Amino acid sequence: MATQEAGKLEWRISVDNGTTERLVPRSGLSKRIFLWLKDLVMKVIMERVAKFMRKAWRIGADDPAKVVHCLKVGLALSLVSIFYYMRPLYDGVGGNAMWAIMTVVVVFESNVGATFCKCVNRVVATILAGSLGIAVHWVATQSGKAEVFVIGCSVFLFAFAATYSRFVPSFKARFDYGAMIFILTFSLVSVGGYRVDKLVELAQQRVSTIAIGTSICIIITVFFCPIWAGSQLHRLIERNLEKLADSLDGCVAEYFKENEVSTNRNEDENTNMKLQGFKCVLNSKGTEEAMANLARWEPAHGSFNFRHPWKLYVKIGAAMRRCAYCLENLSICINYETEAPDQVKNHFGEACMKLSSASSKILRELADMMKNTRKSSKMDFLVFDMNSAVQELQETLKNVPIETNKPEEVPSEEENKVDSEERTTSMSLHEVLPVATLVSLLIENAARIQTAVEAVDELANLADFEQDSKKKTGDNNTKQPPLSS
Amino acid sequence: MATQEAGKLEWRISVDNGTTERLVPRSGLSKRIFLWLKDLVMKVIMERVAKFMRKAWRIGADDPAKVVHCLKVGLALSLVSIFYYMRPLYDGVGGNAMWAIMTVVVVFESNVGATFCKCVNRVVATILAGSLGIAVHWVATQSGKAEVFVIGCSVFLFAFAATYSRFVPSFKARFDYGAMIFILTFSLVSVGGYRVDKLVELAQQRVSTIAIGTSICIIITVFFCPIWAGSQLHRLIERNLEKLADSLDGCVAEYFKENEVSTNRNEDENTNMKLQGFKCVLNSKGTEEAMANLARWEPAHGSFNFRHPWKLYVKIGAAMRRCAYCLENLSICINYETEAPDQVKNHFGEACMKLSSASSKILRELADMMKNTRKSSKMDFLVFDMNSAVQELQETLKNVPIETNKPEEVPSEEENKVDSEERTTSMSLHEVLPVATLVSLLIENAARIQTAVEAVDELANLADFEQDSKKKTGDNNTKQPPLSS
Repeated sequence: MATQEAGKLEWRISVDNGTTERLVPRSGLSKRIFLWLKDLVMKVIMERVAKFMRKAWRIGADDPAKVVHCLKVGLALSLVSIFYYMRPLYDGVGGNAMWAIMTVVVVFESNVGATFCKCVNRVVATILAGSLGIAVHWVATQSGKAEVFVIGCSVFLFAFAATYSRFVPSFKARFDYGAMIFILTFSLVSVGGYRVDKLVELAQQRVSTIAIGTSICIIITVFFCPIWAGSQLHRLIERNLEKLADSLDGCVAEYFKENEVSTNRNEDENTNMKLQGFKCVLNSKGTEEAMANLARWEPAHGSFNFRHPWKLYVKIGAAMRRCAYCLENLSICINYETEAPDQVKNHFGEACMKLSSASSKILRELADMMKNTRKSSKMDFLVFDMNSAVQELQETLKNVPIETNKPEEVPSEEENKVDSEERTTSMSLHEVLPVATLVSLLIENAARIQTAVEAVDELANLADFEQDSKKKTGDNNTKQPPLSS
Repeated sequence: MATQEAGKLEWRISVDNGTTERLVPRSGLSKRIFLWLKDLVMKVIMERVAKFMRKAWRIGADDPAKVVHCLKVGLALSLVSIFYYMRPLYDGVGGNAMWAIMTVVVVFESNVGATFCKCVNRVVATILAGSLGIAVHWVATQSGKAEVFVIGCSVFLFAFAATYSRFVPSFKARFDYGAMIFILTFSLVSVGGYRVDKLVELAQQRVSTIAIGTSICIIITVFFCPIWAGSQLHRLIERNLEKLADSLDGCVAEYFKENEVSTNRNEDENTNMKLQGFKCVLNSKGTEEAMANLARWEPAHGSFNFRHPWKLYVKIGAAMRRCAYCLENLSICINYETEAPDQVKNHFGEACMKLSSASSKILRELADMMKNTRKSSKMDFLVFDMNSAVQELQETLKNVPIETNKPEEVPSEEENKVDSEERTTSMSLHEVLPVATLVSLLIENAARIQTAVEAVDELANLADFEQDSKKKTGDNNTKQPPLSS
């Protein structure tokens, strides 16, 4: 805008002084076009930059831990740079301070577990490959003319073996980075030894610079606002349990709510968000497994001991995913083309809502157990509630109005009333189908929630969650779950 | 074994010569214990190594491409080592040949796309960060006493910004590695410039070594048995489509097969494998997205042009996953506690089998379209078949025996016969529930398959798959789908 105004100014001046020089307006015009084009390009670029910045800002606002991580990277690099600026330190590592900087850049990860994993991998692989490389170099020098051949073959073989080992899943999960550093160091030492004279000294300096780099990383990652992979995983599972509970409640309520409301489906963005919450759980496998792997590298912190059973989180995650598959298919019922008649909905509504609320109560209790790392004293009651809700729903199925010869068996007044009302209008299984699907998915979901309960219980026992003494105060938490994200 | 036999030998000798020296048997005993322990430890180690080797062997046997990749890494490293061995080449890059080796180790990935991605990232980020670093270094030297301060601040700021950008998903998907290399190079150049005199020369040498390393990687990865991420993704989708078809057929057949057979469920390992095939699809999202991202870096190869619509593979994958969720829940019906009565099964069996075979035919046709990169001339018929199977199943629902007032509408002889047979035995919705669930899942699955068909059609149009002219010869392929893996 400022440039455009400057252009206008130019133009006006040239008109005023038009008598002295006729060419000025034309050059002013071309300048205007140039400025206008520049303006346009700048605008487009600025818009894209602004969009990127807005996206970046939102990421930071959603998860301040990411901003903290970036600050820590800057800090670690500034710290390690001191080795360059201070003569004694620089000379102390024989001018190889560069390796310390490199170590910090490649090793510093956003959580403690990943940083530890990379540090250990880097140090161990460097020492191992370095000594092997020196040994091969020695053998090569002894073999006279075949030196190049010996080095070449050994590089080929070790590179082959190390690369191959990276394909073995159990090895890859822990030592992938180490295998790469092994190849790197081995090649550098064995091949590099061909030209470098003081190989052992060089190796020593390199190990010490790497040690300096890794220690700076570890100190900063642990002592400045540490971000623990374990805690993140723990919170992820907790949040996912809450999302499942919200989705379950939301889906069933959505299905059984009055028709006039359901025409205006997008009335509430928030409700829709909750309904879709289970989708985060569907594809969480990779994240959970990666984080559980990283969490194993972390020292004891917060309420997690050194040998915290992180593998169980993967198991809990798998159980939750199975619940999410059920919820995914609940959407079939909601979007079914032929809506079930109202009397069918009324017949099943109460029992379904009861089961879904009993199920989601368990999910919320599990989330609360995770949140406060406590055992639950009322879980047994909740599971019992859920199972009796399942029983009740199955009874309701047996008393379904399209069926004619059984209602005598359970002659409760309310159901009899509904029955007599509905036996007049008969309906086909076709109409009942969505409700029937909903019912069987809810029953299956209840069974799957039970496996989740077992997995969390196992975790609570193995990880020594504290006994649920303050049950009364905890109760409020359970009923008003935090609805973050 | 050999050591144990050696031990026995020792023992016998000492007994034979027992008269001359009494101590020998005792020392033989301790030696035996030592040998036995050594043996035990060796055995345990050997067993673990053997287990690891067996696992590694199986990985290689399952996917020879992995072995090829390892050989290529060895080859690339041996090639790049030549720079060390040959004096003129070594001197040409001022003794910085080490950087070429390093580039090869960190840049060489198992498929062409990943290698290209890393090469481009590394080169661009190095040049960008190198020039920026030199600029900052120049500014710093001009600022006299504040030199260290200027360098320190710039390193902190750029490290912060680059690290932060790695959290933006769209940026991370393409330039994650580049951002790391940017931080690395910038720190090395700007900080390193504090001690190095010929900074520009150093930067030039480094760029040229990196160029050498990346070109060796690109040449080897493209010209020696190339492994294309795109082809892998294409085959993955194709195989997953086949797995879905097998699982669908298997699940429905499993449900409707005769009872006496179903008691012996584990009779066929192969059948079980097929039933579980859909599980690979459930968690394929991460792999598919990663491969689609990498495939975009690849040049034209095989039947894939440069701008092949790789993003559509993600869409197809998503549609397939939605089918897999349906299949996952089909297992509910199979494992349902109360099995549906035989007459119900008989009533629905034919229609369900028809729908499932129509659906799986479409999936196999899609797999065949992918395999031969051809458009399908008979897809419309297959979809029509599937939709009429859905219609038929819905009709069957309307004529379900527990319903009493509608069968007059569709008075086909066969169904009337069944009806009259079954109206005598009444049953509750409770008993019909598993079948009802199966039916609604099958119908939903058909709808989801249609979205997959649309996605594959879109791909076929955008990627210019060839017209299906040799329909007659192709026909056989479709009916005998390859049941690999």
